[in-house]
Amino acid sequence: DPSLHEMMKIDPKYRSIGILGARTGAGPHIMAADEAVKATNTEIVAIELARDTKGGAGHGSLIIFGAEEVSDARRAVEVALKELNRTFGDVYGNDAGHIELQYTARASYAINKAFNAPLGKAFGLIVGAPAAIGVLMSDVAVKTANVELIGYSSPAQGTSFSNEVIIMISGDSGAVRQSVLAAKEAGRKLLEAMGGPAPSSTTPYI
Amino acid sequence: DPSLHEMMKIDPKYRSIGILGARTGAGPHIMAADEAVKATNTEIVAIELARDTKGGAGHGSLIIFGAEEVSDARRAVEVALKELNRTFGDVYGNDAGHIELQYTARASYAINKAFNAPLGKAFGLIVGAPAAIGVLMSDVAVKTANVELIGYSSPAQGTSFSNEVIIMISGDSGAVRQSVLAAKEAGRKLLEAMGGPAPSSTTPYI
Amino acid sequence: DPSLHEMMKIDPKYRSIGILGARTGAGPHIMAADEAVKATNTEIVAIELARDTKGGAGHGSLIIFGAEEVSDARRAVEVALKELNRTFGDVYGNDAGHIELQYTARASYAINKAFNAPLGKAFGLIVGAPAAIGVLMSDVAVKTANVELIGYSSPAQGTSFSNEVIIMISGDSGAVRQSVLAAKEAGRKLLEAMGGPAPSSTTPYI
Repeated sequence: DPSLHEMMKIDPKYRSIGILGARTGAGPHIMAADEAVKATNTEIVAIELARDTKGGAGHGSLIIFGAEEVSDARRAVEVALKELNRTFGDVYGNDAGHIELQYTARASYAINKAFNAPLGKAFGLIVGAPAAIGVLMSDVAVKTANVELIGYSSPAQGTSFSNEVIIMISGDSGAVRQSVLAAKEAGRKLLEAMGGPAPSSTTPYI
Repeated sequence: DPSLHEMMKIDPKYRSIGILGARTGAGPHIMAADEAVKATNTEIVAIELARDTKGGAGHGSLIIFGAEEVSDARRAVEVALKELNRTFGDVYGNDAGHIELQYTARASYAINKAFNAPLGKAFGLIVGAPAAIGVLMSDVAVKTANVELIGYSSPAQGTSFSNEVIIMISGDSGAVRQSVLAAKEAGRKLLEAMGGPAPSSTTPYI
Repeated sequence: DPSLHEMMKIDPKYRSIGILGARTGAGPHIMAADEAVKATNTEIVAIELARDTKGGAGHGSLIIFGAEEVSDARRAVEVALKELNRTFGDVYGNDAGHIELQYTARASYAINKAFNAPLGKAFGLIVGAPAAIGVLMSDVAVKTANVELIGYSSPAQGTSFSNEVIIMISGDSGAVRQSVLAAKEAGRKLLEAMGGPAPSSTTPYI
């Protein structure tokens, strides 16, 4: 419908859209969508982050793929759903909060749209909630290796008022991975000191 | 108190205010307030939507009626409270999220203030949470009948970062009602596929 | 790290930072931080309020102290943590919502930064959630004694879309305390009528 397209600010050239969204796990959904745009003939039309997570401290997501063919839109959603099990792997939570780590050797259009990350370069995402944990993780991450800090989000800027501090880093793939892993160690230790065991949501992948 | 009136941006001509609010059900409260302004000598002074719902994906509400007489303000609140049982009728929820439908043959001042809907015309509200459900419901609604799309809200625009997509429609009363019912069918089917039975909060009224 | 300092907008003169934060109790944390800046050689660098409280209607907090010496930053956090038991004393909650009262005879830099309150004067904070309770408490507070209303926050202005109405008052210490206590009486009565017993989180201190 053209009036809905216009309200949603979707370019009319996309005759089909694929929709991905959930109440929890904005980061895992964006990373999964990034693999989907690499693998299909689609573009990322919108990424919006609700203040959600079912009473948790983070974001839910709404991600819209645009495609000229309905089969491409459907395929993008299928690819993304398959990736989710992996991308939830480095989300660790307990009653005190959660931490999340993401890493890819090559960022594509979803990561670029959501986090303003350079295309084709290694990318790391470091999230700590409550926000105080994220500050500590960020400090560890940038001190561990020579990475470029491309973004910093906190409750009052860059988030939807979530209780998170989030940094995005880019650079050499080895350095980015090393920074992410060091932040994970530090964040998980603190989170577990505050709230007991904080297991992976699925299986760690980084 | 004049300083409080000023901070709250309430016109001093209102010597009395009636206050309606809750942690859940912003839509049902606005619809109930709309009946209250039709039935009493009051005006809608403010409608504010918190990101709330007790860990759910939607909004809580704060609605303020202004009146010159205290009896009018009290009456407005009484009328609104009585309407709530009805206006929660087409709110359906489960662990995955919720959908909400509202319909009136004649929109009054609360609906006009909250949703910018034309006064005196039929009005429909279509809500899906998480937001992805709302996108699908919106698409069904605008394709079902010839209605005017008067608003579109999503996590990043028009909501308080809730995990909802919301559309507001206006037009011929039969067409509006038909669109709302079609969106309800589609939304409830999807919500139940995601999270099991999603019963009405009270008794469906549309 | 200088790039992180810059992203966080922290003056490079602070070689050490102290971090305080939690998922619940923004008010108690700010009041505790206020005692910490009085007692140590630190400054308040940032106070950010997430929309959090573990599914509740209020805010979580991120508070950053800046110091030239690491021992000062650590001491500020220690002092604040010790104060928290007291500052949670006039937080009362049940399933319907919560109310919060804070009072100090002399506001310092944390209260000044968070609430724009005059330094060195008596300060009172009055919070009701859902927001409708806060409107009533505010009305009682400003009618009880001759206090200056220095701020009013509601779901759509001044909060992070929390379901609260919050007022900040200043003035003569006896008047401020009297206003706060009257608002507490009225708010607790209403909250308990809505949701049953609403006990103090620790021990009332005002």
